[in-house]
Amino acid sequence: MEKKKNVSMAVIKRLPKYHRYLKELMRNEVDRISSKELGEKIGFTASQIRQDLNNFGDFGQQGYGYNVKELYKQISLILGLDKDYKGVIVGAGNLGQAIANYGRFSDDGLSIEAIFDANPKLVGMKIRDVEINDIDTLAQYLESNTIDIGVICVPRINAQKVSDILVKGGVKAIWNFAPVDLSVPSDVTVENVHLSESLLTLVYLMNKDEK
Amino acid sequence: MEKKKNVSMAVIKRLPKYHRYLKELMRNEVDRISSKELGEKIGFTASQIRQDLNNFGDFGQQGYGYNVKELYKQISLILGLDKDYKGVIVGAGNLGQAIANYGRFSDDGLSIEAIFDANPKLVGMKIRDVEINDIDTLAQYLESNTIDIGVICVPRINAQKVSDILVKGGVKAIWNFAPVDLSVPSDVTVENVHLSESLLTLVYLMNKDEK
Repeated sequence: MEKKKNVSMAVIKRLPKYHRYLKELMRNEVDRISSKELGEKIGFTASQIRQDLNNFGDFGQQGYGYNVKELYKQISLILGLDKDYKGVIVGAGNLGQAIANYGRFSDDGLSIEAIFDANPKLVGMKIRDVEINDIDTLAQYLESNTIDIGVICVPRINAQKVSDILVKGGVKAIWNFAPVDLSVPSDVTVENVHLSESLLTLVYLMNKDEK
Repeated sequence: MEKKKNVSMAVIKRLPKYHRYLKELMRNEVDRISSKELGEKIGFTASQIRQDLNNFGDFGQQGYGYNVKELYKQISLILGLDKDYKGVIVGAGNLGQAIANYGRFSDDGLSIEAIFDANPKLVGMKIRDVEINDIDTLAQYLESNTIDIGVICVPRINAQKVSDILVKGGVKAIWNFAPVDLSVPSDVTVENVHLSESLLTLVYLMNKDEK
Protein backbone atom coordinates (compact mmCIF):
# COMPACT_ATOMS: atom_id res chain seq x y z
CA MET A 1 0.00 0.00 0.00
CA GLU A 2 1.78 3.10 -1.20
CA LYS A 3 0.03 6.04 0.29
CA LYS A 4 2.86 8.34 -0.60
CA LYS A 5 2.15 8.01 -4.32
CA ASN A 6 0.60 11.13 -5.69
CA VAL A 7 -3.01 10.15 -6.07
CA SER A 8 -5.24 12.80 -7.62
CA MET A 9 -7.90 14.46 -5.51
CA ALA A 10 -10.55 13.16 -7.92
CA VAL A 11 -9.54 9.56 -7.18
CA ILE A 12 -9.41 10.24 -3.44
CA LYS A 13 -12.91 11.69 -3.54
CA ARG A 14 -14.13 8.51 -5.25
CA LEU A 15 -12.66 6.12 -2.65
CA PRO A 16 -15.42 6.64 -0.06
CA LYS A 17 -17.95 5.91 -2.81
CA TYR A 18 -16.25 2.59 -3.57
CA HIS A 19 -16.25 1.90 0.13
CA ARG A 20 -19.97 2.59 0.39
CA TYR A 21 -20.88 0.47 -2.64
CA LEU A 22 -18.77 -2.46 -1.53
CA LYS A 23 -20.41 -2.34 1.89
CA GLU A 24 -23.78 -2.44 0.11
CA LEU A 25 -22.64 -5.47 -1.93
CA MET A 26 -21.53 -7.22 1.23
CA ARG A 27 -24.92 -6.53 2.80
CA ASN A 28 -26.48 -8.17 -0.26
CA GLU A 29 -24.08 -11.09 0.11
CA VAL A 30 -22.38 -10.55 -3.24
CA ASP A 31 -19.00 -12.31 -3.14
CA ARG A 32 -17.34 -11.08 -6.28
CA ILE A 33 -17.90 -8.42 -8.91
CA SER A 34 -16.29 -7.45 -12.22
CA SER A 35 -15.05 -3.92 -12.81
CA LYS A 36 -17.79 -3.66 -15.46
CA GLU A 37 -20.56 -4.58 -13.01
CA LEU A 38 -19.09 -2.40 -10.27
CA GLY A 39 -18.84 0.45 -12.77
CA GLU A 40 -22.47 0.07 -13.80
CA LYS A 41 -23.55 0.22 -10.16
CA ILE A 42 -21.52 3.30 -9.30
CA GLY A 43 -21.86 5.04 -12.63
CA PHE A 44 -18.19 4.92 -13.67
CA THR A 45 -16.65 3.07 -16.62
CA ALA A 46 -14.94 -0.28 -16.00
CA SER A 47 -11.64 1.21 -17.11
CA GLN A 48 -11.95 4.14 -14.71
CA ILE A 49 -12.51 1.70 -11.87
CA ARG A 50 -9.47 -0.36 -12.84
CA GLN A 51 -7.37 2.81 -13.17
CA ASP A 52 -8.56 4.18 -9.83
CA LEU A 53 -7.82 1.00 -7.93
CA ASN A 54 -4.48 0.45 -9.67
CA ASN A 55 -3.28 3.58 -7.86
CA PHE A 56 -3.23 1.57 -4.67
CA GLY A 57 -2.35 -1.97 -5.64
CA ASP A 58 -3.27 -4.94 -7.74
CA PHE A 59 -6.67 -5.95 -6.47
CA GLY A 60 -8.57 -7.58 -9.35
CA GLN A 61 -7.95 -10.84 -11.09
CA GLN A 62 -8.32 -11.19 -14.85
CA GLY A 63 -11.49 -13.17 -15.61
CA TYR A 64 -12.54 -13.27 -11.98
CA GLY A 65 -13.06 -9.66 -11.06
CA TYR A 66 -12.83 -8.39 -7.51
CA ASN A 67 -13.38 -10.31 -4.31
CA VAL A 68 -15.86 -7.95 -2.64
CA LYS A 69 -14.90 -8.62 0.96
CA GLU A 70 -11.19 -8.38 0.21
CA LEU A 71 -11.52 -5.18 -1.82
CA TYR A 72 -13.67 -3.65 0.92
CA LYS A 73 -11.03 -4.53 3.47
CA GLN A 74 -8.25 -3.08 1.32
CA ILE A 75 -10.12 0.16 0.65
CA SER A 76 -10.89 0.45 4.36
CA LEU A 77 -7.17 0.13 5.01
CA ILE A 78 -6.30 2.70 2.35
CA LEU A 79 -8.82 5.09 3.87
CA GLY A 80 -7.28 4.50 7.29
CA LEU A 81 -10.42 2.95 8.78
CA ASP A 82 -8.42 0.31 10.63
CA LYS A 83 -7.77 2.92 13.31
CA ASP A 84 -10.08 4.85 15.59
CA TYR A 85 -10.10 8.61 15.67
CA LYS A 86 -10.94 10.85 18.55
CA GLY A 87 -12.92 13.95 17.77
CA VAL A 88 -14.38 16.99 19.45
CA ILE A 89 -17.33 18.99 18.21
CA VAL A 90 -17.09 22.74 18.69
CA GLY A 91 -20.47 24.42 18.49
CA ALA A 92 -23.49 22.56 19.82
CA GLY A 93 -26.19 24.41 17.92
CA ASN A 94 -28.52 22.46 15.66
CA LEU A 95 -25.86 21.23 13.30
CA GLY A 96 -23.37 20.34 16.05
CA GLN A 97 -26.10 18.46 17.88
CA ALA A 98 -27.14 16.66 14.71
CA ILE A 99 -23.58 15.49 14.17
CA ALA A 100 -23.18 14.49 17.80
CA ASN A 101 -26.41 12.51 17.56
CA TYR A 102 -25.64 10.89 14.23
CA GLY A 103 -24.31 7.58 15.47
CA ARG A 104 -23.30 6.45 12.03
CA PHE A 105 -19.92 8.24 12.13
CA SER A 106 -18.69 5.78 14.70
CA ASP A 107 -18.83 3.19 11.88
CA ASP A 108 -16.22 5.33 10.17
CA GLY A 109 -14.05 5.24 13.26
CA LEU A 110 -14.88 8.68 14.62
CA SER A 111 -15.61 8.73 18.31
CA ILE A 112 -16.77 12.05 19.75
CA GLU A 113 -14.95 12.62 23.03
CA ALA A 114 -16.24 16.04 23.97
CA ILE A 115 -18.45 18.86 22.79
CA PHE A 116 -17.88 22.56 23.37
CA ASP A 117 -20.17 25.53 23.19
CA ALA A 118 -20.24 29.15 24.35
CA ASN A 119 -23.91 29.09 25.37
CA PRO A 120 -24.20 28.63 29.17
CA LYS A 121 -27.64 27.06 28.65
CA LEU A 122 -26.06 24.18 26.74
CA VAL A 123 -23.00 23.68 28.94
CA GLY A 124 -23.48 20.66 31.20
CA MET A 125 -26.05 19.01 28.92
CA LYS A 126 -25.22 15.67 27.40
CA ILE A 127 -25.63 14.32 23.89
CA ARG A 128 -25.33 10.55 23.67
CA ASP A 129 -23.47 10.55 27.00
CA VAL A 130 -20.97 13.17 25.83
CA GLU A 131 -21.01 16.31 27.92
CA ILE A 132 -21.09 19.80 26.47
CA ASN A 133 -18.28 21.86 27.98
CA ASP A 134 -17.67 25.58 28.10
CA ILE A 135 -15.78 26.64 24.99
CA ASP A 136 -13.35 28.57 27.20
CA THR A 137 -12.01 25.23 28.42
CA LEU A 138 -11.21 23.92 24.91
CA ALA A 139 -7.55 24.95 24.84
CA GLN A 140 -6.95 23.39 28.25
CA TYR A 141 -8.81 20.22 27.22
CA LEU A 142 -6.57 19.83 24.20
CA GLU A 143 -3.49 20.15 26.40
CA SER A 144 -4.40 17.00 28.29
CA ASN A 145 -6.21 15.02 25.56
CA THR A 146 -4.96 13.91 22.15
CA ILE A 147 -7.64 14.72 19.61
CA ASP A 148 -7.39 13.75 15.92
CA ILE A 149 -10.37 15.52 14.42
CA GLY A 150 -11.99 18.83 15.29
CA VAL A 151 -15.51 19.35 13.98
CA ILE A 152 -16.30 23.04 13.64
CA CYS A 153 -20.00 23.90 13.84
CA VAL A 154 -19.78 27.44 15.22
CA PRO A 155 -21.05 30.51 13.37
CA ARG A 156 -18.93 31.83 10.47
CA ILE A 157 -17.59 34.72 12.49
CA ASN A 158 -16.01 32.48 15.17
CA ALA A 159 -14.77 29.65 12.99
CA GLN A 160 -11.22 30.89 12.38
CA LYS A 161 -10.70 31.56 16.09
CA VAL A 162 -11.85 28.04 16.96
CA SER A 163 -9.69 26.59 14.20
CA ASP A 164 -6.65 28.40 15.64
CA ILE A 165 -7.31 26.92 19.10
CA LEU A 166 -7.70 23.42 17.64
CA VAL A 167 -4.49 23.72 15.62
CA LYS A 168 -2.59 25.08 18.60
CA GLY A 169 -3.90 22.12 20.59
CA GLY A 170 -2.39 19.66 18.14
CA VAL A 171 -5.46 18.78 16.04
CA LYS A 172 -4.35 17.78 12.53
CA ALA A 173 -7.71 17.35 10.83
CA ILE A 174 -10.59 19.79 10.77
CA TRP A 175 -14.07 18.98 9.52
CA ASN A 176 -15.45 22.43 8.90
CA PHE A 177 -19.18 23.10 8.64
CA ALA A 178 -18.88 26.89 9.00
CA PRO A 179 -19.40 28.77 5.73
CA VAL A 180 -15.89 30.17 5.62
CA ASP A 181 -12.52 29.01 4.27
CA LEU A 182 -10.13 28.45 7.16
CA SER A 183 -6.50 29.39 7.14
CA VAL A 184 -4.38 26.57 8.64
CA PRO A 185 -0.74 25.44 8.55
CA SER A 186 0.18 23.05 5.73
CA ASP A 187 0.30 19.98 7.99
CA VAL A 188 -3.35 20.39 8.93
CA THR A 189 -6.07 18.93 6.68
CA VAL A 190 -9.38 20.72 6.30
CA GLU A 191 -12.47 19.15 4.76
CA ASN A 192 -15.31 21.59 4.24
CA VAL A 193 -19.00 20.88 4.20
CA HIS A 194 -20.50 24.08 2.88
CA LEU A 195 -24.20 23.35 2.95
CA SER A 196 -25.18 26.72 1.59
CA GLU A 197 -22.94 26.27 -1.45
CA SER A 198 -24.43 22.86 -2.05
CA LEU A 199 -27.92 24.37 -1.96
CA LEU A 200 -26.92 27.16 -4.37
CA THR A 201 -25.51 24.58 -6.79
CA LEU A 202 -28.81 22.71 -6.67
CA VAL A 203 -30.78 25.90 -7.31
CA TYR A 204 -28.56 26.83 -10.25
CA LEU A 205 -28.81 23.40 -11.88
CA MET A 206 -32.54 23.24 -11.32
CA ASN A 207 -33.05 26.58 -13.07
CA LYS A 208 -30.74 25.64 -15.90
CA ASP A 209 -32.75 22.49 -16.59
CA GLU A 210 -35.99 24.41 -16.60
CA LYS A 211 -34.90 26.75 -19.38
CA MET B 1 -27.24 36.04 -19.35
CA GLU B 2 -26.91 32.84 -21.34
CA LYS B 3 -27.70 30.00 -19.04
CA LYS B 4 -28.03 27.56 -21.91
CA LYS B 5 -24.33 27.80 -22.66
CA ASN B 6 -22.55 24.66 -21.63
CA VAL B 7 -20.77 25.73 -18.48
CA SER B 8 -18.56 23.08 -16.90
CA MET B 9 -19.54 21.57 -13.57
CA ALA B 10 -16.26 22.83 -12.08
CA VAL B 11 -17.20 26.43 -12.87
CA ILE B 12 -20.74 25.90 -11.57
CA LYS B 13 -19.37 24.55 -8.31
CA ARG B 14 -17.24 27.68 -7.94
CA LEU B 15 -20.11 30.13 -8.41
CA PRO B 16 -21.47 29.77 -4.84
CA LYS B 17 -17.96 30.47 -3.60
CA TYR B 18 -17.79 33.71 -5.59
CA HIS B 19 -21.20 34.56 -4.21
CA ARG B 20 -20.02 33.98 -0.65
CA TYR B 21 -16.83 36.00 -1.03
CA LEU B 22 -18.57 38.91 -2.71
CA LYS B 23 -21.12 38.98 0.13
CA GLU B 24 -18.20 39.10 2.57
CA LEU B 25 -16.64 41.99 0.62
CA MET B 26 -19.94 43.84 0.72
CA ARG B 27 -20.11 43.31 4.47
CA ASN B 28 -16.66 44.86 4.69
CA GLU B 29 -17.83 47.73 2.49
CA VAL B 30 -15.41 47.03 -0.33
CA ASP B 31 -16.74 48.70 -3.49
CA ARG B 32 -14.51 47.28 -6.17
CA ILE B 33 -11.94 44.56 -6.57
CA SER B 34 -9.54 43.40 -9.28
CA SER B 35 -9.56 39.80 -10.51
CA LYS B 36 -6.08 39.50 -8.97
CA GLU B 37 -7.23 40.60 -5.51
CA LEU B 38 -10.39 38.50 -5.73
CA GLY B 39 -8.28 35.53 -6.79
CA GLU B 40 -5.92 35.97 -3.84
CA LYS B 41 -8.86 36.04 -1.47
CA ILE B 42 -10.53 32.94 -2.89
CA GLY B 43 -7.37 31.06 -3.76
CA PHE B 44 -7.79 31.04 -7.56
CA THR B 45 -5.61 32.73 -10.16
CA ALA B 46 -6.74 36.03 -11.65
CA SER B 47 -7.01 34.42 -15.06
CA GLN B 48 -9.20 31.61 -13.75
CA ILE B 49 -11.54 34.18 -12.24
CA ARG B 50 -11.75 36.10 -15.51
CA GLN B 51 -12.35 32.89 -17.45
CA ASP B 52 -15.02 31.67 -15.01
CA LEU B 53 -16.95 34.91 -15.09
CA ASN B 54 -16.61 35.29 -18.86
CA ASN B 55 -18.82 32.22 -19.15
CA PHE B 56 -21.73 34.32 -18.05
CA GLY B 57 -21.08 37.78 -19.41
CA ASP B 58 -18.74 40.73 -19.48
CA PHE B 59 -18.54 41.88 -15.89
CA GLY B 60 -15.13 43.40 -15.31
CA GLN B 61 -13.68 46.58 -16.65
CA GLN B 62 -10.06 46.84 -17.79
CA GLY B 63 -8.08 48.82 -15.21
CA TYR B 64 -11.02 49.12 -12.85
CA GLY B 65 -11.80 45.55 -11.87
CA TYR B 66 -15.18 44.42 -10.69
CA ASN B 67 -17.85 46.48 -9.05
CA VAL B 68 -18.50 44.26 -6.01
CA LYS B 69 -22.18 45.05 -5.57
CA GLU B 70 -22.91 44.68 -9.27
CA LEU B 71 -21.00 41.41 -9.60
CA TYR B 72 -22.74 40.05 -6.50
CA LYS B 73 -26.08 40.98 -8.04
CA GLN B 74 -25.18 39.37 -11.36
CA ILE B 75 -23.96 36.14 -9.76
CA SER B 76 -27.10 36.03 -7.61
CA LEU B 77 -29.12 36.28 -10.83
CA ILE B 78 -27.06 33.58 -12.52
CA LEU B 79 -27.57 31.32 -9.52
CA GLY B 80 -31.30 31.99 -9.67
CA LEU B 81 -31.44 33.71 -6.28
CA ASP B 82 -33.85 36.36 -7.54
CA LYS B 83 -36.64 33.84 -7.03
CA ASP B 84 -37.94 32.07 -3.92
CA TYR B 85 -38.09 28.31 -3.73
CA LYS B 86 -40.51 26.23 -1.78
CA GLY B 87 -39.10 23.15 -0.11
CA VAL B 88 -40.21 20.23 2.01
CA ILE B 89 -37.99 18.26 4.36
CA VAL B 90 -38.65 14.54 4.47
CA GLY B 91 -37.22 12.95 7.59
CA ALA B 92 -37.25 14.94 10.83
CA GLY B 93 -34.52 13.08 12.66
CA ASN B 94 -31.48 15.00 13.89
CA LEU B 95 -30.28 16.06 10.47
CA GLY B 96 -33.73 16.98 9.19
CA GLN B 97 -34.34 19.02 12.32
CA ALA B 98 -30.96 20.71 11.99
CA ILE B 99 -31.78 21.77 8.45
CA ALA B 100 -35.27 22.90 9.42
CA ASN B 101 -33.75 24.95 12.23
CA TYR B 102 -30.93 26.41 10.19
CA GLY B 103 -32.48 29.73 9.29
CA ARG B 104 -29.66 30.68 6.99
CA PHE B 105 -31.06 28.81 4.00
CA SER B 106 -33.84 31.35 3.73
CA ASP B 107 -31.11 33.82 2.68
CA ASP B 108 -30.58 31.54 -0.29
CA GLY B 109 -34.26 31.70 -1.15
CA LEU B 110 -35.31 28.34 0.29
CA SER B 111 -38.46 28.47 2.37
CA ILE B 112 -39.42 25.25 4.12
CA GLU B 113 -43.17 24.78 3.71
CA ALA B 114 -43.67 21.43 5.40
CA ILE B 115 -41.79 18.63 7.12
CA PHE B 116 -42.67 14.93 6.96
CA ASP B 117 -41.71 12.01 9.15
CA ALA B 118 -42.85 8.46 9.80
CA ASN B 119 -42.39 8.66 13.57
CA PRO B 120 -45.79 9.29 15.27
CA LYS B 121 -43.96 10.92 18.18
CA LEU B 122 -42.72 13.67 15.87
CA VAL B 123 -45.90 14.20 13.85
CA GLY B 124 -47.73 17.29 15.04
CA MET B 125 -44.59 18.93 16.47
CA LYS B 126 -43.41 22.20 14.99
CA ILE B 127 -39.96 23.40 13.99
CA ARG B 128 -39.77 27.15 13.44
CA ASP B 129 -43.54 27.23 12.99
CA VAL B 130 -43.49 24.50 10.35
CA GLU B 131 -45.50 21.45 11.30
CA ILE B 132 -44.22 17.90 11.00
CA ASN B 133 -46.76 15.83 9.04
CA ASP B 134 -47.21 12.10 8.69
CA ILE B 135 -45.08 10.87 5.80
CA ASP B 136 -48.08 8.97 4.48
CA THR B 137 -49.62 12.32 3.56
CA LEU B 138 -46.64 13.45 1.44
CA ALA B 139 -48.02 12.30 -1.94
CA GLN B 140 -51.33 13.99 -1.25
CA TYR B 141 -49.60 17.17 -0.05
CA LEU B 142 -47.63 17.37 -3.29
CA GLU B 143 -50.85 17.05 -5.29
CA SER B 144 -52.17 20.29 -3.86
CA ASN B 145 -48.90 22.21 -3.31
CA THR B 146 -46.20 23.16 -5.80
CA ILE B 147 -42.84 22.31 -4.26
CA ASP B 148 -39.51 23.12 -5.93
CA ILE B 149 -37.03 21.37 -3.66
CA GLY B 150 -37.32 18.15 -1.71
CA VAL B 151 -34.78 17.69 1.09
CA ILE B 152 -34.28 14.00 1.85
CA CYS B 153 -33.08 13.25 5.38
CA VAL B 154 -34.53 9.77 5.84
CA PRO B 155 -32.41 6.66 6.44
CA ARG B 156 -30.61 5.17 3.44
CA ILE B 157 -33.05 2.33 3.09
CA ASN B 158 -36.07 4.62 2.56
CA ALA B 159 -34.44 7.34 0.47
CA GLN B 160 -35.27 5.98 -3.01
CA LYS B 161 -38.91 5.44 -2.06
CA VAL B 162 -39.16 9.04 -0.80
CA SER B 163 -37.40 10.29 -3.91
CA ASP B 164 -39.95 8.47 -6.11
CA ILE B 165 -42.85 10.10 -4.24
CA LEU B 166 -41.23 13.54 -4.57
CA VAL B 167 -40.60 13.08 -8.29
CA LYS B 168 -44.13 11.78 -8.90
CA GLY B 169 -45.39 14.85 -7.04
CA GLY B 170 -43.62 17.18 -9.47
CA VAL B 171 -40.50 18.06 -7.46
CA LYS B 172 -37.65 18.89 -9.86
CA ALA B 173 -34.79 19.33 -7.42
CA ILE B 174 -33.70 16.97 -4.66
CA TRP B 175 -31.20 17.82 -1.95
CA ASN B 176 -30.19 14.39 -0.76
CA PHE B 177 -28.56 13.81 2.62
CA ALA B 178 -29.12 10.04 2.65
CA PRO B 179 -25.94 8.03 1.98
CA VAL B 180 -27.21 6.54 -1.27
CA ASP B 181 -27.24 7.54 -4.93
CA LEU B 182 -30.78 8.17 -6.08
CA SER B 183 -32.16 7.12 -9.40
CA VAL B 184 -34.27 9.94 -10.90
CA PRO B 185 -35.55 10.98 -14.36
CA SER B 186 -33.23 13.20 -16.38
CA ASP B 187 -35.28 16.36 -15.78
CA VAL B 188 -34.77 16.10 -12.03
CA THR B 189 -31.62 17.54 -10.43
CA VAL B 190 -30.04 15.83 -7.43
CA GLU B 191 -27.41 17.41 -5.22
CA ASN B 192 -25.90 15.04 -2.70
CA VAL B 193 -24.46 15.85 0.70
CA HIS B 194 -22.77 12.64 1.71
CA LEU B 195 -21.40 13.46 5.15
CA SER B 196 -19.86 10.08 5.69
CA GLU B 197 -17.90 10.33 2.43
CA SER B 198 -16.69 13.75 3.44
CA LEU B 199 -15.47 12.35 6.77
CA LEU B 200 -13.71 9.44 5.04
CA THR B 201 -11.95 11.87 2.71
CA LEU B 202 -10.75 13.84 5.73
CA VAL B 203 -9.49 10.69 7.45
CA TYR B 204 -7.65 9.57 4.31
CA LEU B 205 -5.97 12.94 3.80
CA MET B 206 -5.04 13.22 7.46
CA ASN B 207 -3.34 9.83 7.39
CA LYS B 208 -1.61 10.57 4.12
CA ASP B 209 -0.08 13.72 5.60
CA GLU B 210 1.14 11.88 8.66
CA LYS B 211 3.20 9.41 6.65
